[in-house]
Amino acid sequence: MSSNTNVLRVGLAGCGTVGSGVVRVLGENKDWLRTRSGREIVLTHLLEHSPQKLQGLPVPTGLIVTDDPAQLTDNPDIDVVIELMGGIDSPGAFIMRALDNGKHVVTANKALLAEAGLPLLEKAAERGVSLLYEASVAGGIPIVQAMKESLAANRIVSLSGILNGTSNYILSKMEAAGTDFATALAQAQELGFAEADPSLDIDGQDAAHKLVILIRLAYGTEYPYTQLPVQGIRDIDQLDIGFAREFGYHIKLLGTVRAEDGSLQAGIFPTLIRKSALLAQVSGAFNAVWLHGNAVESLFFHGKGAGSMPTASAVVGDLLALARGTAPNNTGFVSQIPSAARIMPPA
Amino acid sequence: MSSNTNVLRVGLAGCGTVGSGVVRVLGENKDWLRTRSGREIVLTHLLEHSPQKLQGLPVPTGLIVTDDPAQLTDNPDIDVVIELMGGIDSPGAFIMRALDNGKHVVTANKALLAEAGLPLLEKAAERGVSLLYEASVAGGIPIVQAMKESLAANRIVSLSGILNGTSNYILSKMEAAGTDFATALAQAQELGFAEADPSLDIDGQDAAHKLVILIRLAYGTEYPYTQLPVQGIRDIDQLDIGFAREFGYHIKLLGTVRAEDGSLQAGIFPTLIRKSALLAQVSGAFNAVWLHGNAVESLFFHGKGAGSMPTASAVVGDLLALARGTAPNNTGFVSQIPSAARIMPPA
Repeated sequence: MSSNTNVLRVGLAGCGTVGSGVVRVLGENKDWLRTRSGREIVLTHLLEHSPQKLQGLPVPTGLIVTDDPAQLTDNPDIDVVIELMGGIDSPGAFIMRALDNGKHVVTANKALLAEAGLPLLEKAAERGVSLLYEASVAGGIPIVQAMKESLAANRIVSLSGILNGTSNYILSKMEAAGTDFATALAQAQELGFAEADPSLDIDGQDAAHKLVILIRLAYGTEYPYTQLPVQGIRDIDQLDIGFAREFGYHIKLLGTVRAEDGSLQAGIFPTLIRKSALLAQVSGAFNAVWLHGNAVESLFFHGKGAGSMPTASAVVGDLLALARGTAPNNTGFVSQIPSAARIMPPA
Repeated sequence: MSSNTNVLRVGLAGCGTVGSGVVRVLGENKDWLRTRSGREIVLTHLLEHSPQKLQGLPVPTGLIVTDDPAQLTDNPDIDVVIELMGGIDSPGAFIMRALDNGKHVVTANKALLAEAGLPLLEKAAERGVSLLYEASVAGGIPIVQAMKESLAANRIVSLSGILNGTSNYILSKMEAAGTDFATALAQAQELGFAEADPSLDIDGQDAAHKLVILIRLAYGTEYPYTQLPVQGIRDIDQLDIGFAREFGYHIKLLGTVRAEDGSLQAGIFPTLIRKSALLAQVSGAFNAVWLHGNAVESLFFHGKGAGSMPTASAVVGDLLALARGTAPNNTGFVSQIPSAARIMPPA
């Protein structure tokens, strides 16, 4: 570790959509990042099986491209590892090893954090390093940092989010253009929003991962991912959209949690939202989070929930916090902390 | 300084609208704050000429109420001073002395920060302490922290904000109810939004203070407050509102800054905003900030821009960051940093 020197040395695992954005932000905003942090942030290693993905990117001089994870996790010359590989088991082991070796880790991996995040957070605490994950929820919207810091004085009464851009794009298309579900989904796939297998998006699991992370931040409670009630948008048709419109509502796929009588009620559901509400105005591939805190009252965030550069903005924001030495640890945001909250499905 | 102990000792200057909110949040969320920070945040001293303002508040045991500023600024048993007095000269001297004595300072004082903030930020840097001011812009909306941390990797292309709740309340009333300006202003005063002398609000200076602070955060540039073009809403009448409506626009008092060809164009102006835009949906005493960053693309924040508890949420969020030792210093956000940006009035 060389965290006291003027250089922060970074290893990046994965150069797909988000990873290539990170390479671009580090390259294009290089001088600005140095001004902001007082340090040089240098990408020294890239873990990637397909080095051709670097084509057209501002590749830093001397970058070492490897397909050996240990060249990042076990390298004494790397301060921070960024995990953008996707999946659960393999990145989980990768992150665990990096933390164990005393490296800070930045990740956008919502599935891993929601389904198997606790041991990683505990390991980071044990080793006195940071595990940061602003990019894992709602892309460029700075909701993780806000929950950890600016809003941390609040008890969160309730929180609702449009957390999956693909579903929101499909619902928006169905509403605005009268498109049927299958056609809207095909359009989302053409535009690159939806994967070839879009089930994580349209069946609600992607939103569920993000909601579990938000619940951990808001309540310090581990809500078991497998117990979260989840319903996707696969069965929404033009009849639903039409009835909703007639009564003055939009249909949105909403992740919601509410604290009531010491319990948490949470779930992912297609939800009727009155047209005048801010959440109803969220269209296309945008994400949004609305919350009510006992001090701050209502707050609403709206921004790009996915995409190369917006998500990279969040990843590099975490890097900057590490460079400046201001990254919060996760104390108070994981379940070792005694919590009165029990968990129950929504009424 | 006892910042390594389990207690963070706080002196509060001023127990008006925001100060009383701080006393309430510290009292009502006490256990939560301890869980979150791992430390006890204890209000030990209150600087206040009218101790009767404490009536009905959860006053901590042993609180010392004084009208002698030195009992806070010069007290070796205080770690953090919160300045909520208002004004410029007197709180400026108060904060300078506290910083000089090695204390962290939290303030909501936008006029002071905009008109005479630089020497204070420099003093904090010199003494290695934090000067935090989340509450100074847009109340409970965590825009200061977002600019300093989560969005810090971005070059901000442009930023627009509805930064004065009183003006927005008046314009909303004029639009929704056909009220004339004078009547809407009187209603804002009755509801406690507007001061007896409302000129800071309706002539745009309050919004101007906040914009100068946002420019410092976004560009690391000191935009001289006295050079900022400012136009308020005093001359808006129902004829303007009506024409705007006819063409599909709302009128909002907007603070805007845009980086163009290495220059900053900034100002406060009543602005036509197309009805479908999120900024046009901001009604009543709410505030909002919209920005475009070169990585994050568009982001929109909406929340309570004033009021006792929402503003206190921001103040106590800053306290928590100090308690957890994660408060960012202001490196990279003040004008010692060389900046290519020149300043010019909007075209």
